Amino acid sequence: MSEEKEVTIYDIAKQLNISATTVSRGLKDHPTINIKTRKKIAETAKLLGYRSNTFASSLRSKRTQTLGVIVPRLNSSFMSSVLAGMENAANKEGYNLIIAQSQEQVEKEKENAQIMFNKRVDGLLVSLAYGTESIQHFEVFFSKKIPVIFFDRVAAHADSTSIIIDNYSAAYQVTKHLISQGCKRIMHVGGNMLLNVYSERLRGYKQALADHKLPFTEKLVLTGNLTEECGAETAQKILKMKVKDRPDAVFCANDTAAVYCMIALKAAGIKIPGEIAFAGFNNDPISRVVEPNLTTVNYPGYNMGQAAVTGITSHLNGGTNISDTNTIVLRSELIVRDSSVKKK
Amino acid sequence: MSEEKEVTIYDIAKQLNISATTVSRGLKDHPTINIKTRKKIAETAKLLGYRSNTFASSLRSKRTQTLGVIVPRLNSSFMSSVLAGMENAANKEGYNLIIAQSQEQVEKEKENAQIMFNKRVDGLLVSLAYGTESIQHFEVFFSKKIPVIFFDRVAAHADSTSIIIDNYSAAYQVTKHLISQGCKRIMHVGGNMLLNVYSERLRGYKQALADHKLPFTEKLVLTGNLTEECGAETAQKILKMKVKDRPDAVFCANDTAAVYCMIALKAAGIKIPGEIAFAGFNNDPISRVVEPNLTTVNYPGYNMGQAAVTGITSHLNGGTNISDTNTIVLRSELIVRDSSVKKK
Repeated sequence: MSEEKEVTIYDIAKQLNISATTVSRGLKDHPTINIKTRKKIAETAKLLGYRSNTFASSLRSKRTQTLGVIVPRLNSSFMSSVLAGMENAANKEGYNLIIAQSQEQVEKEKENAQIMFNKRVDGLLVSLAYGTESIQHFEVFFSKKIPVIFFDRVAAHADSTSIIIDNYSAAYQVTKHLISQGCKRIMHVGGNMLLNVYSERLRGYKQALADHKLPFTEKLVLTGNLTEECGAETAQKILKMKVKDRPDAVFCANDTAAVYCMIALKAAGIKIPGEIAFAGFNNDPISRVVEPNLTTVNYPGYNMGQAAVTGITSHLNGGTNISDTNTIVLRSELIVRDSSVKKK
Repeated sequence: MSEEKEVTIYDIAKQLNISATTVSRGLKDHPTINIKTRKKIAETAKLLGYRSNTFASSLRSKRTQTLGVIVPRLNSSFMSSVLAGMENAANKEGYNLIIAQSQEQVEKEKENAQIMFNKRVDGLLVSLAYGTESIQHFEVFFSKKIPVIFFDRVAAHADSTSIIIDNYSAAYQVTKHLISQGCKRIMHVGGNMLLNVYSERLRGYKQALADHKLPFTEKLVLTGNLTEECGAETAQKILKMKVKDRPDAVFCANDTAAVYCMIALKAAGIKIPGEIAFAGFNNDPISRVVEPNLTTVNYPGYNMGQAAVTGITSHLNGGTNISDTNTIVLRSELIVRDSSVKKK
C-alpha cells in the first residue's frame, strides 16, 4: 500500500510564501495574525489535507480527547439509546468515544479495560458484565486518577460515580400498582441477583408485598437470563402449576421476558390481564406493540448516556469532582398500559 | 486534578536493578533476554502500571489500530446489530472503534469525517446520512489512501468498497410473494429515493408488478421518513380512500412504518391480512410481536458489520485491496409470516 507523505506546516508556509511560525500561529487563530491571512492559511491547510498533529499535542497535554466505553452487549434497545446519548454529549464536548463490548464475560471485560488503558483514554464509562463480582481490573485507572463512571450495572468505589435509576423504588411502584388492581399472587421473574439492577428490583417487589400485608412466596420468584426463551419457559412453568397455585400477575425484570411469556400464555388461552396481569421493565419498542400493550418502567437510556459523559467531562475540565459524587439517580417512571389494568 | 507521573522503562529497570535496554527488549519478548527475566519484567510493568508508548509507536508505524465508524443514528435496532458485529470483528483483529453519528445531517457527517481524519483512523466505515448527495467530504481519505468502506447506505467510488444487500431482489421477492397471495393493488411506502436502499426497493417492487402484468399506479407509491408517525399517517391516507381504491396489500420499506400502519388500521376495524396484507423490511424485534406477525426481509446487520471490518482490516494487512472490490452483497431472506398469508 503506497502512502503519501504527511503534510506539514512547512508545506503550507511554502505554498503561501510565509513563515512556518505564521502558519502555526494562524492555525491556532492567534490574534497577531491578521484575519485574511488566517483564512488563507486555513483554506490552504484544508486544500493540502493537513492534519493537526494530535499525537504530538496529546503527548504535550496528556489528553487524547477520547473516552472509553465498555458495555455488556451493543445490540440491545436500551444500550443503543445509551450510546446515542453518549455520542451526542461527547460530540458537543469535543470528545470521541472508543467502544467495546464484554459480551457479558468478565475475562473480555478485563481485556477491554487493559486495551482502553493502553489507548490512554481520558476517562472510562462502564456497565458491568453479567458475572462481574470484583472491579479490581479497573484499579489501574483509579491509581492513575483516570476518572471512571459506572452506569446502570454498577459497583461501588470511593473514586467513582455511579449513574443509575432507583430500581428499588421503580419495582416497588410496579408491584404496588399490580396490588391496586386486586392482584394477590404476584410472580417476579428476575435476573442475576449479583447485579444491583436485579437485586434492587427484587427488594422493591418484596417491600411492596410486605407493606400491603401480602405474603412473600419463594416459589413465585424465578430468576433467569431474561431472554425470549426465558419468557417462554416461564409461561410453561405457569401452565404446569395447578390453577389455584398460578399467579394472578407476573412482573418481569425486563420487557423481553414479559412479552414472550405473554405470547406463550395467550397461545395457551390465558386471558391477559383478566386471568394474569403483566408488567415489564425498560419500555422497549416491543412493549408498545404486544397486545395488550405492556405496563413497564421507562428507563432513560439516552439521558443516562448523556449524564455519564457530562459527568466525566465536567470532572476532566476541573468542574465537579467524581470522588465527591457517589451516585447520580435518574428519574424513571411507571407507564401503565392495558396488560395490567383489571379495574377500569 | 493531580496526575501521577507516567511510568517509564527506566522505572522498571530501577526496580529490577537491570538496564533499560534489557527492559525494553524484555517487553518486546526479545529472544536475547531469558524467559525468567522477561516474566519478571512483565510482572513489574503490570505492577507499576506501565503503558506501552502507543503514541510514539503510532508515530513510527503510522498506524493507530483504530477504525472510525460514522452512522446516521446509533439508536436503531438494525444499527446496534451492525455495531455489535463490527466490535466483534475489530476486537479479534486488534482494532478499536471510534464511533460517531451524523444524526441524518450532512453537515454533521462532514464534521465527523474531519474529526476521524484528524484522529488518524486507519480506516473508515460509513453509512450515509439521509440527505447526503455528494461524498466530496471523504475525498481527504481517498487522497491519503486511507481505506473507506460504505455499508448499507452507500455511494459509488472507485477507491471504495460498498457492502450491501440486494435491495432490488429482496423487494422483488416481497412483491412477488404478495402477488402470489392474490394481491393486485399493492401499495409501496418507501424512504428518501436519493438513497440506494430505498430506490432499489422501489425498483424491485415495480419490476415484480411488470413481470406479473400488474399495472403500476403512481398513487399507490408513498414516500416518507418511515417512522411510527409515518406508519400511522399512511393508515389515515388509506382509510380516506374510497373502499374500491384501497390497496389490498401494503409493502413498507421498514418494519416500524408497517407495524404502526397495521396497528392504526386494526383499530379502525380493517382485517389483516384478509382485507389488507402487510410486509415490512428489516426483521426488527417488533415484527415478531405485532399481531399478526409481520412478513419481512431479514437484514443481516451483524454480518454486515463483521464484513465491513474484515474488509478494511484485510486491506490494511495487505490482503484484498479495497480498490479491487466494488461491491460485496450479503444474503438477505424473505421471512413469510401471517400478516401476508391469504391462501393457506
